Amino acid sequence: MTQALAPKPLSQVALKDFDPRHIEGDWDKKSAAKQIEENTEVTRELAYRLYAENRRAVLLVLQGMDTAGKDGTIRTVFTGVNPQSCQIVPFKQPSNEELDHDFLWRIHKAVPRRGNIGIFNRSHYEDVLIVRVHNLVPKSEWETRYKRINEFEELISDGGVVLLKCFLHISKEEQKERLQARLDRPHKRWKFSKGDLAERKLWDDYQQAYEMAVSNCNTEHAPWHIIPSDRKWYRNMVVSTLLRETLEKLDPQFPSEEQGLDDIVVE
Amino acid sequence: MTQALAPKPLSQVALKDFDPRHIEGDWDKKSAAKQIEENTEVTRELAYRLYAENRRAVLLVLQGMDTAGKDGTIRTVFTGVNPQSCQIVPFKQPSNEELDHDFLWRIHKAVPRRGNIGIFNRSHYEDVLIVRVHNLVPKSEWETRYKRINEFEELISDGGVVLLKCFLHISKEEQKERLQARLDRPHKRWKFSKGDLAERKLWDDYQQAYEMAVSNCNTEHAPWHIIPSDRKWYRNMVVSTLLRETLEKLDPQFPSEEQGLDDIVVE
Repeated sequence: MTQALAPKPLSQVALKDFDPRHIEGDWDKKSAAKQIEENTEVTRELAYRLYAENRRAVLLVLQGMDTAGKDGTIRTVFTGVNPQSCQIVPFKQPSNEELDHDFLWRIHKAVPRRGNIGIFNRSHYEDVLIVRVHNLVPKSEWETRYKRINEFEELISDGGVVLLKCFLHISKEEQKERLQARLDRPHKRWKFSKGDLAERKLWDDYQQAYEMAVSNCNTEHAPWHIIPSDRKWYRNMVVSTLLRETLEKLDPQFPSEEQGLDDIVVE
Repeated sequence: MTQALAPKPLSQVALKDFDPRHIEGDWDKKSAAKQIEENTEVTRELAYRLYAENRRAVLLVLQGMDTAGKDGTIRTVFTGVNPQSCQIVPFKQPSNEELDHDFLWRIHKAVPRRGNIGIFNRSHYEDVLIVRVHNLVPKSEWETRYKRINEFEELISDGGVVLLKCFLHISKEEQKERLQARLDRPHKRWKFSKGDLAERKLWDDYQQAYEMAVSNCNTEHAPWHIIPSDRKWYRNMVVSTLLRETLEKLDPQFPSEEQGLDDIVVE
């Protein structure tokens, strides 16, 4: 199932070829919810073994336009997993101290430790997305970043971190509805900022920047997955399944015991 | 219920006055499990509001002898809460870099950010527990630490962090059974280390060190709770209830919306 969502490594991707309402197979809201529940149970057990094994880590990178559902995906996929296994790092506007270093400095510090599942809510990709769209640094600086990102991701992958990069792909129409819903529902209004509308005007620029990021950084060791995200229930099910499959493939094992425990009696 | 477990602020505590098998009220395994389920639902909602409010934080400090159930408590109390709200920090043997600083340096860095629930799996209290029992630093150094800890906890409390300190109190007999169970069950053996037995021999020294820590650092702004922990289901229920009550008392509110949103239509 997930294979269909992954573009070919290092090929030019056109987002218009990926339908944000696409559904692979015979899914509906109910069967997806059931699948998520099953996935959570398996993930909970495998996360425990990953933690016990203490040798490798998983890093889920979540990117997407405003309202694409990064927070909602985390809530649905990880509520029910022991938070002791999860290191969730939201990347916001960089601090002055962070800006005083190269763009991967703050990212490197946040890489999950062995045994854990790290979740990046936004990531180093912002440095070729918002930075590129708003010309926050000169082109000569951001255009080398794709290469730097690939090298960095290979480094941490060599260090035992399995990367799972998901682009939550929504349509412009769907974003409109979600922003309007934030305005129309009193208890959602605190999430709305007028700045969101200014960003929305740059929709095409962002789509293009995403295409470049996915095209240039879809490597063997750190592939991108394009998640059809206009339907929240489908988006959550796909990410949840990808995570489960990643852990199943890792197949973490309990570590071996100390020698000479057989005759010990605790007193 | 929880009141009964809290010793008087800054009074001399004798752990023998607190029964590790104590049950306050009419609880059994089944009713406790139901209570935990209810608590988790309330905590999930309040944690979301705490996150939205983005003004205050909660810090749950978990301490206890080996096998007292720090990991198990985290698993039971927090599985079902959105991990995006939780920052769990396990404190292990300090690194060389950490030892090159005062004992609170690594702790301060790990204080939860606004909007989050931090969980310390062990904490700065190790610096008046294992450090004291094993004379890792001279007495002149550790004996001032109680005061430093109180000052530090008042500092972060002023900064909006509500502290909830729990000592998971087990009996020596119960620890014996739990260590033996780790030896006897093949899939639990990886958790067993012969070093655990050497530590167990220092049981009385550790109890005394805990008494000093609880007696000297049971302040108004950061009270200790002694959790009867010989029964896992009761321990989990009490910590889960304390957390829920702490959040209910905080009563976090959704932030107010931006001005001038009424006439906006998203295009």
